[in-house]
Amino acid sequence: MNEFQQRIAASFAAQGLMATLGARLALVAEGEVHIEMPFSIHLSQQQGFVHAGAITSIVDSACGYAALTRSPPGSEIVTAEFKTNFMRPAMGTRFLAVGKVQNAGRMLTVCTGEVRAFTGDGPDYKVVALMQATMVNVPAGA
Amino acid sequence: MNEFQQRIAASFAAQGLMATLGARLALVAEGEVHIEMPFSIHLSQQQGFVHAGAITSIVDSACGYAALTRSPPGSEIVTAEFKTNFMRPAMGTRFLAVGKVQNAGRMLTVCTGEVRAFTGDGPDYKVVALMQATMVNVPAGA
Amino acid sequence: MNEFQQRIAASFAAQGLMATLGARLALVAEGEVHIEMPFSIHLSQQQGFVHAGAITSIVDSACGYAALTRSPPGSEIVTAEFKTNFMRPAMGTRFLAVGKVQNAGRMLTVCTGEVRAFTGDGPDYKVVALMQATMVNVPAGA
Amino acid sequence: MNEFQQRIAASFAAQGLMATLGARLALVAEGEVHIEMPFSIHLSQQQGFVHAGAITSIVDSACGYAALTRSPPGSEIVTAEFKTNFMRPAMGTRFLAVGKVQNAGRMLTVCTGEVRAFTGDGPDYKVVALMQATMVNVPAGA
Repeated sequence: MNEFQQRIAASFAAQGLMATLGARLALVAEGEVHIEMPFSIHLSQQQGFVHAGAITSIVDSACGYAALTRSPPGSEIVTAEFKTNFMRPAMGTRFLAVGKVQNAGRMLTVCTGEVRAFTGDGPDYKVVALMQATMVNVPAGA
Repeated sequence: MNEFQQRIAASFAAQGLMATLGARLALVAEGEVHIEMPFSIHLSQQQGFVHAGAITSIVDSACGYAALTRSPPGSEIVTAEFKTNFMRPAMGTRFLAVGKVQNAGRMLTVCTGEVRAFTGDGPDYKVVALMQATMVNVPAGA
Repeated sequence: MNEFQQRIAASFAAQGLMATLGARLALVAEGEVHIEMPFSIHLSQQQGFVHAGAITSIVDSACGYAALTRSPPGSEIVTAEFKTNFMRPAMGTRFLAVGKVQNAGRMLTVCTGEVRAFTGDGPDYKVVALMQATMVNVPAGA
Repeated sequence: MNEFQQRIAASFAAQGLMATLGARLALVAEGEVHIEMPFSIHLSQQQGFVHAGAITSIVDSACGYAALTRSPPGSEIVTAEFKTNFMRPAMGTRFLAVGKVQNAGRMLTVCTGEVRAFTGDGPDYKVVALMQATMVNVPAGA
């Protein structure tokens, strides 16, 4: 792992919520981060699908870490805001959140993300959610 | 409890994610629902504050149930989309999500929500997040 | 007019789009700004109602100027992002955009706004749109 | 022109705001519509750049017409909500709004859009804004 992959792996391991959701880092590249989460009934809404909040949690983290790969040295990322569309029920055996940087400014980074639902072992998926997010660079330790 | 309070209590109990987050229904009124969640390190992001995704999960459920109180008989609510602003770190001993209906249409209901962070036993709080959400009425069992 | 009212009046007068839309400043108070726009067929969408873009333009300016009333001396406001819900057709003889500051930070200000449609001379209105927006403080002249 | 191109051209011509902004339809394809707008000082905000509201107007129309190309026969499209990020000042000699369908449902269509700023006659551009929008199918004439 290179330096930013190590830094993101350490930060991800410190996110209690990611462990609670059963999520794991699946890919860290410059400007793009993937987070995977298997289905669990402990993540459900009332109809048995995965709750919009759990779907949002993994794509928010994916977008935040994607932003971190493009942030100035010594900075942290916090989420200023995001918007998520839910296009179909979050049904599947596993979910992959893909976060990408669209524009990295000095202060603000704009990211887009999607969550893909897989129903079997194959590569086929359906996009269940789309995110557009604004991330803020803050000095680490601030 | 009246009929819609019973119905919402039953639906809430079926949301696996709410139990996973340690959240509970705190108020159900016509057009307004509150959900409370105590702080836990299992909900944290990398700095130890509550993750934006957990904050969003409770206010999404609060908005969805607020919409349900105004929906036609026999319908379910699903989230079409939401947008959340995070105004300060989610620090506190407990959090209260307040969801309110702003406009209930035949097909779509627009809600706003906020999440309040409390640091002690008193009534003082700071608003840490604001949501604006679109909920869809779908036939129950569809 | 006090200092910030003068400054906002001057800035508003420099917004070519506001003149193009026939909009005028209706109220400037600390943390709250109103902008009024009469109906015109030149602002319409295909059904003859006011276009979502014109509605958004006035409430964006109202939110931006509300943010300016709470910004540090010597700073300008630019819109980082906004989200608008349209709850009913924008029908009316005049429209009033109300922008309010919800939280003013050092760098970012979160505002909410609504657009009210009036159909006669009286005080009755319907809210046709809701906005939640993020404004950025930038040094003036930057 | 095929049938949906004719229908969209007629609808566009009925949007008073598009004429007011100096905008024109540049491309109509299945699931994708482009709208072009030259720079004019009549569209400006206080610093002389194009106002976020004008930028939003053209990308909202582009997304709406993209949705219309995928909607059931006999239906109209109205905007339920949109969210726009502004990534840099809208400077340029002309602007192109590109709206694309991401998912077309029976009731709701989710679109994404971007606005490209061109500074000369060449093909180079910068993306100044990103939109994520929810469009609703309504029966025509309703």
